Amino acid sequence: MIIVAPVSQSAADQAAVRQGRLTKPTGALGRLEDASVWLASVQGSCPPEPFSHPQLVIFAGDHGIARRAATSAYPPEVTAQMVANFVTGGAAANVLARQFGAHVHVVDVSVDAPHDYLDAVDAHVAARRIRRGSGSIDREDAMTSGEAQAALALGSTLADEAIASGADVLIPGDMGIGNTAVASTIIGLLTGRAAAAVTGRGTGIDDAVMQRKVVAIDAAMERGRTSVGAPEVLLATVGSPDIAAMSGFLARAAERGVPVILDGIVSCSAALVAERMAPGARRWWAAGHVSTEPAARIALDSLGLTPLLDLDLRLGEGTGALLALPILAAAATTLGQMATFDSAGVSDRGH
Amino acid sequence: MIIVAPVSQSAADQAAVRQGRLTKPTGALGRLEDASVWLASVQGSCPPEPFSHPQLVIFAGDHGIARRAATSAYPPEVTAQMVANFVTGGAAANVLARQFGAHVHVVDVSVDAPHDYLDAVDAHVAARRIRRGSGSIDREDAMTSGEAQAALALGSTLADEAIASGADVLIPGDMGIGNTAVASTIIGLLTGRAAAAVTGRGTGIDDAVMQRKVVAIDAAMERGRTSVGAPEVLLATVGSPDIAAMSGFLARAAERGVPVILDGIVSCSAALVAERMAPGARRWWAAGHVSTEPAARIALDSLGLTPLLDLDLRLGEGTGALLALPILAAAATTLGQMATFDSAGVSDRGH
Repeated sequence: MIIVAPVSQSAADQAAVRQGRLTKPTGALGRLEDASVWLASVQGSCPPEPFSHPQLVIFAGDHGIARRAATSAYPPEVTAQMVANFVTGGAAANVLARQFGAHVHVVDVSVDAPHDYLDAVDAHVAARRIRRGSGSIDREDAMTSGEAQAALALGSTLADEAIASGADVLIPGDMGIGNTAVASTIIGLLTGRAAAAVTGRGTGIDDAVMQRKVVAIDAAMERGRTSVGAPEVLLATVGSPDIAAMSGFLARAAERGVPVILDGIVSCSAALVAERMAPGARRWWAAGHVSTEPAARIALDSLGLTPLLDLDLRLGEGTGALLALPILAAAATTLGQMATFDSAGVSDRGH
Repeated sequence: MIIVAPVSQSAADQAAVRQGRLTKPTGALGRLEDASVWLASVQGSCPPEPFSHPQLVIFAGDHGIARRAATSAYPPEVTAQMVANFVTGGAAANVLARQFGAHVHVVDVSVDAPHDYLDAVDAHVAARRIRRGSGSIDREDAMTSGEAQAALALGSTLADEAIASGADVLIPGDMGIGNTAVASTIIGLLTGRAAAAVTGRGTGIDDAVMQRKVVAIDAAMERGRTSVGAPEVLLATVGSPDIAAMSGFLARAAERGVPVILDGIVSCSAALVAERMAPGARRWWAAGHVSTEPAARIALDSLGLTPLLDLDLRLGEGTGALLALPILAAAATTLGQMATFDSAGVSDRGH
């Protein structure tokens, strides 16, 4: 079991008290007030500051289930094409990262493409690949136990590297045709829901594909049911290398005491696994948004996290978490810079 | 009747088509895609740009109903104190405006304080005051017909001044103890709801005050019922100078063809009035957020506007609209800067 760093209850308490002194009715800033208390707790100081060095790490991987059971609206080769798109800066996550001052690091954990597919743009991206693709989890294991261990270790190392580079908040991003099917399987198993309840339309599948996807997820959940109590076995049986790496990344961030903004369904599935490996890790996390994928809200509810944004996003990549950065910054600046009733000579209620 | 400038349907159409070519599943950016289409329609170009010169105009006023019927958790003198707080930059709206690059202009439309209360900070703020406070609308008119005309004209002039100063988007902000009671009255009358359905807890009133507030709003709605078809009469009978000025501001912005981001319940009430005076003005508006005040959502539904944010805010001042600025900017930058399937060599679905 991984021991999670403690958040600062005293900084959180100070933030809550300070909110009550600002020139506004108590509670009038709603979710910003809650967010400011969370920021104080993870930064260990009150008032907290806006994050200055956000780092997005995109975990890319292919999924056998998409190739075999055709659960996606897009062909598997899109994963590799999109990795190249991240490297050249053309994806939504790149645009939002530029806008909100985040660094982007894309890692090919398990893309199903020849190793040299990125030579023209950036060969380093694939240098630490765990394996090419993954098993079709409705019929076979996603990977070996050794590969799952290696993927977890890779994620942990990626968190360490991001922190060493100065990141003060980490964002897990995802890219991989088929990854919502795997994430739904994990979330269904770890929250005790049926396949139909955790299956969504991913990139936008039609009814026929949706039916196939529910059947495939149901079969995968059957295969994974006996490993629910053992996160690493679960990942090897019905997970994937990219989601395993993301789980290791999230657990390590909490162990190191670095906050994380969760994104959509894939990061939510990794978060559920990480919380099992590192109980209490969720205290280090904010939910940036809630995806339209039904399993995302199920996972956030299970983690006790309330999303900041609800913009009907279903893209992944870290986009919903990036969009939460200015809202979190607003939570910090209002708590830090607003006048108090005393300093502004404003009458408080009942005075 | 005020003739509203046309928005650009062709730019909107171009934006919708361009969204379908970007390297993401169609619709995966959810509300950002809708917002990008709106931005194109009001900027008349595709792709649209993030707003570069947002201007927040805060309409401050006192309300007789708060003093007489004690409908607020705060004493009326807080309005004048908060105007001073805006001038010195200590309010939530100031902090968020600084963060998101908006200019702040606070105008005392009808504050119930001696004219010289701001001498120490900024006497200009009160130079165009329409009247001191307003009538208690449950028993008497808010103001004379001439005062309502003058308030509408002031709002129109404030829009012209903001546009002349280079503003490319306007945000109506509010400050005034008792203003939610007046806004609820207007929204109830213009959407045909009962007093109990449009009354909220404002700054955070308890059950006893809430009961008084419903009774007062019900009485005001009775007084205003015959003037529902005549916006200016309605404003004089059961409105207030600050909300009248905000209505004139919103109508004039649409006449001039300048977009607006609406904030909470007070701006929603002014928007309903402005839409009556200037039919179609709502095409120029985005709903920045939805307040916890029940009448805010009722008004937005009536206007056919879907809020971008839902952060449990109930502060007013323009805070919810300011928080939407980075989200709208993200809508513009994703549409403008993302690679297309063709340019990035990414396979579209079914290809």
